[in-house]
Amino acid sequence: MKKEIRLCGFGGQGIITAGVIVGKSASVYSNYNAVQTQSYGPEARGGASKSEVIISDEEIGYPGIEKADILVVMSQQAWDRYGKTSKPNSTIVIDPDMVKIERGGKKIYEVRATKIASDLGNKIIANMVMLGALVGITGIVPKDAMEQAILDSVPKRFVGLNKHAFAEGFKHGVRELEKQR
Amino acid sequence: MKKEIRLCGFGGQGIITAGVIVGKSASVYSNYNAVQTQSYGPEARGGASKSEVIISDEEIGYPGIEKADILVVMSQQAWDRYGKTSKPNSTIVIDPDMVKIERGGKKIYEVRATKIASDLGNKIIANMVMLGALVGITGIVPKDAMEQAILDSVPKRFVGLNKHAFAEGFKHGVRELEKQR
Repeated sequence: MKKEIRLCGFGGQGIITAGVIVGKSASVYSNYNAVQTQSYGPEARGGASKSEVIISDEEIGYPGIEKADILVVMSQQAWDRYGKTSKPNSTIVIDPDMVKIERGGKKIYEVRATKIASDLGNKIIANMVMLGALVGITGIVPKDAMEQAILDSVPKRFVGLNKHAFAEGFKHGVRELEKQR
Repeated sequence: MKKEIRLCGFGGQGIITAGVIVGKSASVYSNYNAVQTQSYGPEARGGASKSEVIISDEEIGYPGIEKADILVVMSQQAWDRYGKTSKPNSTIVIDPDMVKIERGGKKIYEVRATKIASDLGNKIIANMVMLGALVGITGIVPKDAMEQAILDSVPKRFVGLNKHAFAEGFKHGVRELEKQR
């Protein structure tokens, strides 16, 4: 088993934190090896943000990703850049309020992460909604493992809010999955 | 210019946060390209933590690090594993209260980051002290750029404490540098 995950959006959406949490959930709290990378080019200064995670039950040689198995997209700019680079059978999750896409052959799950987070009180937790959706749709790591990694990564007084956002995202993810089956 | 930086220690020391901040300081707030990686193997479950950053004024092809130009070590386990893998002319910064080393030919700067952080009120900001020392000793990115990246990465109410820790680390770093010149 080897999965390459790319998360992308713009600065301030917590893309990097989300990547760190995915890496930790897979390694520290599940039984995988993981490599998690942020690459910053000139586009970072334009506000773009990208985080990549490789999860494997074997040792990981090369830490870079070419085409993703799982692509999570939270901004139009990120979609324009990475939307067409995922593998043929990839799982794609987008926030449809942030990304307008042309429908192609690929299966795309829509989770209104920013809206859901905003309804919960703060759109900065849209990343946690997306992590919930990611687990609900792909089962890439156990739900508990991701929750543990979130606990490690957010300030104590925000744990409740973040867990709530994660749970909402999970619910929406599972619903989207059922819709498309 | 291309610099490979490895930060290592144990979980809870904020090694990953420190790596993210270095990457951001170089890319978003300076004019470099940067790739920043966390690799988690089985040792992550033993509490080890490692973060690597490549900074370059050209595009970065391979995102992995073999031997570091700059090595920051905050635990004995990390030293035992990575202490001997840096480049011949590397800059090594350790917390001497956490790492007992055998003196070899290499130039090693000692910054009591954990002690300094503890004196400031909380040893969890030892990573910020280390970032200050890193900038003071190596000048790898401008001081302002690192400060901006720290601002982005810590909760608002802790900004003052973190900046203070960074400033103390910077001072100690500069002092260490002068001592060894």
